[in-house]
Amino acid sequence: MTISATSTPMDHAPLSPTAATVVADMARRARIAGRALGHSSTAQRNEALCQAAAALRAVRAELLAANARDVAAFSGAASFRDRLTLDAARVEAMAKGLEDVAKLPDPLGRVLSEWTRPNGLKIRRVATPVGVIGMIYESRPNVGADAAALCIKSGNAVILRGGSDSIHSARVIHGAMQAGLRAAGLPVDAVQIPPDTDRRHVADMLAASGLIDLLIPRGGKSLVERVCREARVPVLSHAEGLCHTYVHAAADLEMARRIVLNAKMRRTGICGATETLLIDNAIAPVLLPGLVEDLATKGCAFRADARARAIVPDLPPATAQDFATEWLDAVISVAVVDGIDDALAHIVRYGSSHTEAIITEDAHAATRFLNETDSAVVMWNASTQFCDGGEFGFGAEIGIATGRFHARGPVGLEQLTTFRYEVIGTGQVRP
Amino acid sequence: MTISATSTPMDHAPLSPTAATVVADMARRARIAGRALGHSSTAQRNEALCQAAAALRAVRAELLAANARDVAAFSGAASFRDRLTLDAARVEAMAKGLEDVAKLPDPLGRVLSEWTRPNGLKIRRVATPVGVIGMIYESRPNVGADAAALCIKSGNAVILRGGSDSIHSARVIHGAMQAGLRAAGLPVDAVQIPPDTDRRHVADMLAASGLIDLLIPRGGKSLVERVCREARVPVLSHAEGLCHTYVHAAADLEMARRIVLNAKMRRTGICGATETLLIDNAIAPVLLPGLVEDLATKGCAFRADARARAIVPDLPPATAQDFATEWLDAVISVAVVDGIDDALAHIVRYGSSHTEAIITEDAHAATRFLNETDSAVVMWNASTQFCDGGEFGFGAEIGIATGRFHARGPVGLEQLTTFRYEVIGTGQVRP
Repeated sequence: MTISATSTPMDHAPLSPTAATVVADMARRARIAGRALGHSSTAQRNEALCQAAAALRAVRAELLAANARDVAAFSGAASFRDRLTLDAARVEAMAKGLEDVAKLPDPLGRVLSEWTRPNGLKIRRVATPVGVIGMIYESRPNVGADAAALCIKSGNAVILRGGSDSIHSARVIHGAMQAGLRAAGLPVDAVQIPPDTDRRHVADMLAASGLIDLLIPRGGKSLVERVCREARVPVLSHAEGLCHTYVHAAADLEMARRIVLNAKMRRTGICGATETLLIDNAIAPVLLPGLVEDLATKGCAFRADARARAIVPDLPPATAQDFATEWLDAVISVAVVDGIDDALAHIVRYGSSHTEAIITEDAHAATRFLNETDSAVVMWNASTQFCDGGEFGFGAEIGIATGRFHARGPVGLEQLTTFRYEVIGTGQVRP
Repeated sequence: MTISATSTPMDHAPLSPTAATVVADMARRARIAGRALGHSSTAQRNEALCQAAAALRAVRAELLAANARDVAAFSGAASFRDRLTLDAARVEAMAKGLEDVAKLPDPLGRVLSEWTRPNGLKIRRVATPVGVIGMIYESRPNVGADAAALCIKSGNAVILRGGSDSIHSARVIHGAMQAGLRAAGLPVDAVQIPPDTDRRHVADMLAASGLIDLLIPRGGKSLVERVCREARVPVLSHAEGLCHTYVHAAADLEMARRIVLNAKMRRTGICGATETLLIDNAIAPVLLPGLVEDLATKGCAFRADARARAIVPDLPPATAQDFATEWLDAVISVAVVDGIDDALAHIVRYGSSHTEAIITEDAHAATRFLNETDSAVVMWNASTQFCDGGEFGFGAEIGIATGRFHARGPVGLEQLTTFRYEVIGTGQVRP
């Protein structure tokens, strides 16, 4: 654990507990492949992505047959079955996604800052790959292709451990990614999947300190929480998105109705959906009835505090636990607050540091909210559903992070890099 | 553990194992104080630093008396005793250091990047404090003052756990820091020290996931390694600096002699000192004898591989373990290599990802070395001893990091911040 990890050299590190395992061996091969990938040209990495897209299209029939086997064996809930299921359009979307990542700017080699010291030393910070990334995800097969694309583009090797439910699909997709790497003259070990679905591989990935540089879990809260709890490797993740929209006393009422409706109901199952509405006491009597009507018309249920129920008596009462619940459904918690301090206190108490929004025409109040909200993303007069790599203009995202380091919010190519300092002298020695 | 940590809200988090401890209580108070500090003005934080400097000067006699008690009770090695000992000049330097940090630019609120989306949303990344920092260090009393200064300036609350050898000195210094905060109207809980020297507090800091956001250990390798091994909180650190200077075949020979002598011998005990000399076979016969003479004249000892000994037969032989040793002393390991690939392979095998340098007049070779060396800092035609926050122009540093995330190399004010995204709309909802 540690962001800094140790300074132990990778290739002759004291062997980790996983040293003799399949995962350790994969990670060592990934390290070597990742070095080559990190030093390859932009054109070569883009070529690998385009060739992988072509390979994916070429194996479409095989992939759909493999996916049919996965679906036939699947016994879980219908919503998970839908995520697992591929069709021709979804395969094409996956291939198109690879080509889209090829079109994005190269995140490697960017000079993040540079300056010259009085003694003439030129110092610059240059973007470099993170190294070996471990991706642990559930059944959606496209997550593997998307993650591989972002890792190839950013010069990182990746080990993809998807759910065992999608193993046959994952193998065909992996074959296409490796075909792309091979066609571009890049090492196929840059994208690997474990040879079987042994759950031991997940435990080994969590323990692979010094072998894997970064873990990215994608899936339900219990998966993410387990990874955060047990991993001895840095993790980028968010366990939940308990997002708030706060309607300030100086809000434009029409805008507030439009934004709240979108923030809650556009898609209720995404982590950027608003779960709690905070509304200032000063405008609640005029605004809340209309807001409730808008939301109820779209099928939303409510959990309201006593002050909200004093205005709209039909609303069911909320418990403290309701305010701590990420609904991911057509349900909204509602509380009436006494201004910005009260709203901020509610968010500190119940928030998950993901995304919060204020609706107001008062720039001073908005600035305070932006400055004093301790979340990865804070918004003013916009829907929390905009918390998304695509909407941020990143082209693609590998996940959303709510931690405090390195990457927060939507994680795109840029956040899959770290940096080194380059110091260029003309023979300077230190006095 | 995890860089992302969880998204668990801090103030009603599942209680950590340390919840009922002194450290947990300090951390909760630090969280509240840190929020206030993070929202305070630049002028207010600078005022706290200047007032703390004044307070430190005002208690000089008391501090020297407290320090004399620490020194009298100390039974360790003379070099540690020297680091522990304060005198009037060292107290003045500490006070001056606080004032110097006050003069540095405010790292908070910097707009790191900003752009506008086609739908009119303005997005910007803004620098924010990390939160609550835990500093675990050994006996040098000034480390506490320096760390407190950098944390106050960067809006972070800090818990300072210094060595028990310096507890009386630490208490007086802490009093001065809190006097500065108080005089500036800032919460004194922004800088705290444990009430006693119970070693349990260190274990509690390591376990304080969700309560402390970042640990920075400063001290010997065993301290740093323990923190990295046991911490459940992100750590910024370097365990060792096994730095290499590689003299390429196209080096300016005079420059190479000047740089190698400085890189090894200017100060042998700092982490940026060169520990291993790699020298190309093509120039070793003409260069090595002179280099050895320069170093030997200054009192340096050698551990040389067979090829170096074939050129200078008097050199003692090196073992593989010697190349894996951070000497921190007037000793240098020497290996003759066959060009840049061989040099890079040696560094991959033995390096600690800290600082490496190439000496060459060949820009192509230098570029390859800069690109392909996987260390926090890579240098061209300069002494590795320049790896230092002051030399980088950061004004002050809290440590040097060799991990892959967030902060690498010298860690100054800028790296004590993280960021949030601010999204500014005019009522946009997501289609």
